[in-house]
Amino acid sequence: RLALPVFASDPLSSVTYATQEVLVILTLGGLAYLTYTPWVAAVVVLLLITVVASYRQLVRAYPTGGGDFEVANTNLGPTAGLIVASALLIDYILTVAVSVSAGVDNLISAVPELNDYRVPIAIGIVVLLSAMNLRGIRESGIAFAIPTYLFIVGMAGLIVWGLGQTLFGDDPVSESAQYDVQAEMTDLGGIALMLLVLRAFASGCTALTGVEAIANGVPAFRKPKAKNAAATLAIMGTLSITMFSGITALAVIADVRYVENSCDLVGFDCTQPQPTVISQLAEAVFGGDTIPFYYIQGAAALILILAANTAFNGFPLLGSILAQHRYAPRQLHTRGDRLVFSNGIIVLAVLAGLLIVAFDASVTRLIQLYIVGVFTAFTFGQTGMVRHWNRLLAAGPTGPERRQILRSRAINGTGAILTGVVLVVVLITKFTHGAWLVVAMMPLLFLLMRGIRRHYDTTSEELAVEDWPSESLLPSRVHAVVLVSRLHKPTVRAIAYARAARPDILEAITVDVDESATAALLDEWDRHDIPVPLRVLDSPYREIARPVVEYVRAIRRASPRDVVTVYVPEYVVGHWWERILHNQSVFWLKGRLLFTPGVMVTSVPWQLRSAAAAKAKAKAKQAPGDVRRGGPR
Amino acid sequence: RLALPVFASDPLSSVTYATQEVLVILTLGGLAYLTYTPWVAAVVVLLLITVVASYRQLVRAYPTGGGDFEVANTNLGPTAGLIVASALLIDYILTVAVSVSAGVDNLISAVPELNDYRVPIAIGIVVLLSAMNLRGIRESGIAFAIPTYLFIVGMAGLIVWGLGQTLFGDDPVSESAQYDVQAEMTDLGGIALMLLVLRAFASGCTALTGVEAIANGVPAFRKPKAKNAAATLAIMGTLSITMFSGITALAVIADVRYVENSCDLVGFDCTQPQPTVISQLAEAVFGGDTIPFYYIQGAAALILILAANTAFNGFPLLGSILAQHRYAPRQLHTRGDRLVFSNGIIVLAVLAGLLIVAFDASVTRLIQLYIVGVFTAFTFGQTGMVRHWNRLLAAGPTGPERRQILRSRAINGTGAILTGVVLVVVLITKFTHGAWLVVAMMPLLFLLMRGIRRHYDTTSEELAVEDWPSESLLPSRVHAVVLVSRLHKPTVRAIAYARAARPDILEAITVDVDESATAALLDEWDRHDIPVPLRVLDSPYREIARPVVEYVRAIRRASPRDVVTVYVPEYVVGHWWERILHNQSVFWLKGRLLFTPGVMVTSVPWQLRSAAAAKAKAKAKQAPGDVRRGGPR
Ligand SMILES: [K+]
Ligand SMILES: [K+]
Ligand SMILES: [K+]
Ligand SMILES: [K+]
Ligand SMILES: [K+]
Ligand SMILES: [K+]
Repeated sequence: RLALPVFASDPLSSVTYATQEVLVILTLGGLAYLTYTPWVAAVVVLLLITVVASYRQLVRAYPTGGGDFEVANTNLGPTAGLIVASALLIDYILTVAVSVSAGVDNLISAVPELNDYRVPIAIGIVVLLSAMNLRGIRESGIAFAIPTYLFIVGMAGLIVWGLGQTLFGDDPVSESAQYDVQAEMTDLGGIALMLLVLRAFASGCTALTGVEAIANGVPAFRKPKAKNAAATLAIMGTLSITMFSGITALAVIADVRYVENSCDLVGFDCTQPQPTVISQLAEAVFGGDTIPFYYIQGAAALILILAANTAFNGFPLLGSILAQHRYAPRQLHTRGDRLVFSNGIIVLAVLAGLLIVAFDASVTRLIQLYIVGVFTAFTFGQTGMVRHWNRLLAAGPTGPERRQILRSRAINGTGAILTGVVLVVVLITKFTHGAWLVVAMMPLLFLLMRGIRRHYDTTSEELAVEDWPSESLLPSRVHAVVLVSRLHKPTVRAIAYARAARPDILEAITVDVDESATAALLDEWDRHDIPVPLRVLDSPYREIARPVVEYVRAIRRASPRDVVTVYVPEYVVGHWWERILHNQSVFWLKGRLLFTPGVMVTSVPWQLRSAAAAKAKAKAKQAPGDVRRGGPR
Repeated sequence: RLALPVFASDPLSSVTYATQEVLVILTLGGLAYLTYTPWVAAVVVLLLITVVASYRQLVRAYPTGGGDFEVANTNLGPTAGLIVASALLIDYILTVAVSVSAGVDNLISAVPELNDYRVPIAIGIVVLLSAMNLRGIRESGIAFAIPTYLFIVGMAGLIVWGLGQTLFGDDPVSESAQYDVQAEMTDLGGIALMLLVLRAFASGCTALTGVEAIANGVPAFRKPKAKNAAATLAIMGTLSITMFSGITALAVIADVRYVENSCDLVGFDCTQPQPTVISQLAEAVFGGDTIPFYYIQGAAALILILAANTAFNGFPLLGSILAQHRYAPRQLHTRGDRLVFSNGIIVLAVLAGLLIVAFDASVTRLIQLYIVGVFTAFTFGQTGMVRHWNRLLAAGPTGPERRQILRSRAINGTGAILTGVVLVVVLITKFTHGAWLVVAMMPLLFLLMRGIRRHYDTTSEELAVEDWPSESLLPSRVHAVVLVSRLHKPTVRAIAYARAARPDILEAITVDVDESATAALLDEWDRHDIPVPLRVLDSPYREIARPVVEYVRAIRRASPRDVVTVYVPEYVVGHWWERILHNQSVFWLKGRLLFTPGVMVTSVPWQLRSAAAAKAKAKAKQAPGDVRRGGPR
């Protein structure tokens, strides 16, 4: 139940800008074309119903959370799977960029003075979200549920009140109804008109973005996971349709005019920002400067920011699945390296930020890229499902089961065709408006992931054992060397551990970096009767690594069938600055030793007092993406 | 012999701006005060002779290259030593900032169109020098010798030709001679006049900066090191005096007028940059736009850039000495961690860059800070030498030896008093003009270095062995655990090495992250009859580190007197991106294990094919500061 809010914010937030984008395109032809609005909206609703129904099939058939990627990979092959993976990565980045930009739009509609700071505010929100996610906040149900419900209530209130007013003859009138619209395109003949309406429809399809995220998040639902995910889709679909229809209806009733280039609004002061459609409706229904008005602006901005946050949380899960298929670094699949997740969050934030800056936080321009990514995933996903049902049909089921499969296949098939058509429409109509960027980025991601997969495959081959007897051959003897700098507790411990292991040969070595220190060490060594011989290595250039590595190599040359273990005392510290003051030469030395064949490096740790405090602190931290990955298996 | 150019560039380059700074101050009082120029210069020359003679004593008494720091530390105590260390760090940073700014000044005097880009060009030069030094260029004699000799020849030519012209009655006349000077300060009474002349003298003392660097670099000279260093000081001192006197004489003859605020030059277009004094002299003697003119500008700019470069090279040496005294991270004292040297170079570059930006690459303003640092080192150094001679006298020498010591003490004593006076003068007269910044920075560096020393001392105490029997107690048994993910070559090698070590208990563990993979592993393990038992650890959250650490802790709890060795197969790769794809979880796991008492971590490396290529490449590289630290001991 609590999963609804987490996943609902992405799709529900789309309604705040979908209607707007339809108007933006239609007004390019002038006021007259706004009459097409209801028709365009109706087709979008039909598509929404189809796609939601499609995805309900998908989540029931593939409940492990692979979503469109898994469906495409399993049913259409790895190449299609990679295409979908690239599309979903684009999807996530654009979810952040579009949602944050739309959120800022709504903020500015409430406080127009902020308009000069659009881009900085947007970047600031991205930075804030990254910081929160790097810290690893829990995607806790409550925190996410409240804004989502507030938004639903707000929209419901707006639509009900507005329609109510209309019913009683007091139609709400938007502030932009007074302005005439200067058409950017004139003399629209048949083809051009159809293209314009198609473009508007393609823009309206932005209302569907977010549905795919639920399929990627099935593991996070309570059991029975697939059933709950399907139910959530249904609820969310109903809400979306209702809100989108309601908002569009109100926009038509209130005669909202929203254009791409605000100077085309004749009479409007185009140094001022255009208020968003949601904002204009709230102003028309409740009056500007009222509590409901600011409530709606706030709720809209909040749900958009939540939608952006879902991308930060869903990203590690997508990475985990891709890593499982070896398209991404392995450790994304296993928890434990917070560093990699953090890197993913940073990459996501940086790319989203770059897009926001490059497109000036303009929702209209960013939408073009968004839709390409989302609808690529839609189309391949639905097509994969059709293949899936075909496979099941080939097994020869009969009766009600067969009818069920046929029905499911029909739903997915319709979805695939329709979304495919929209994808083509979007690519054609929006290519020059920015879609080219996505068309360029997707192959790059594709090649990167394929390259990673190739590397892992090549390495696997290189490392596969062929000659078992020779690989498992034991070394004849173990020659242990303990690295000594000073005779203190860590050294004594290393010697004790080395002796306990009872190697065939055991000796201690020290590098002569400082004559007086070396002489003192030899003296102490004698005085305390250490039962291990101490050898002094010369170091003319006062370095530590080279003499040790050369000595170890000499041992190996003299006895190639022996293995050498180098015992290196290592400080375990609590603070980052302590790491700078200790251990640095050790790090360098270990790296050099690891390049030498037939050598093992044993770290004998000594925990400094500061380390204990750090240990206690480290236990408490939460890793990013915990909730989304589902609880324990 | 070749050491002269390397160390000479810093002190010799000072003459390009010293005369200028004297004029800048005197002209504040108006044209009339330029008559004091020869007197101020004469006192500067006297001080230069004294300081050079002083340093000749110092390098002979302390030939290990500790310079002023070592003298102060040994003779005046650690607090004084730390003060000098802080001052020298400031010195190095300002050497870069001042030299680069002065170099850019000379470039702009030749090409005035560049004036708008002063600061970017200066920053660019700093970045270039950093990059070259990070790469680790050899401070090769030839590359440094040529520009230095070119500069000496150029200056000699300028001075000789100019004086020659004067001798024959054809005095050179500077381009600024035509402008009257608007005085910034009027009605200069007795005290104010004296203060102005003192300020001018303090600025002129900038001619001494760089002498101290030779004392810090004695190890780089050929044997006999001290003698050669002393000889170099003498030669360099003579050259400095000659050039400074000559340039100042010419400046007086040619009636050069150089002011702080260029709009004070009545009639001068103050949107244009003032040409430097060297530039004006070259123009007056040879004519502008002639080959000698550009030659001199080029040679001046070149030697200034070389002077900045010496700071980048001398810095690691200073760091090494400070590290030896535990005032800086230990690994600065031993070669082998290029990373730390690189960090030092970056810090130096960043701080110099910040100063250049903050003070707008203005030599006049940066000089204020420079002199405080250099003269603090001078004063403490000379005072330390006086103490040094007192100590030697207390031993009761007689005859010629005693006279020698008395004479040396007199030289150093005079030097100490004079430089101390200058230091006080500079602090008083220039405090508000920027010296306060240095006065603030030095205590910070002092506290930082003292903090580092304290940390090392505390850690030493913590680690000193007190209870020998209990510290050297051997563990009863060795319990070896081999970490297995897949059954490939690295795993087989780890098992072989672990078996060779013949531990009391040996087992393999794998973490169940992926059920199918784990099942396949168990199957292979049986099929190949691996003689080590394999245990599967559950991992409900799909992490690797936690189950392993908990298992190891459980072993230790059950048998506290055993030591546990964890064998971790590790990939050794050649490319940075390969590191991202492998080893990341290993890194995390090792860190967690090292926090657990009674545990050793043994890395069993597997060198991938790409590692061999990287190994060959790594051998060839030169580390920064190699030549300066002297060859093999
Ligand atoms: K929607
Ligand atoms: K969305
Ligand atoms: K999305
Ligand atoms: K000088
Ligand atoms: K200098
Ligand atoms: K210097």
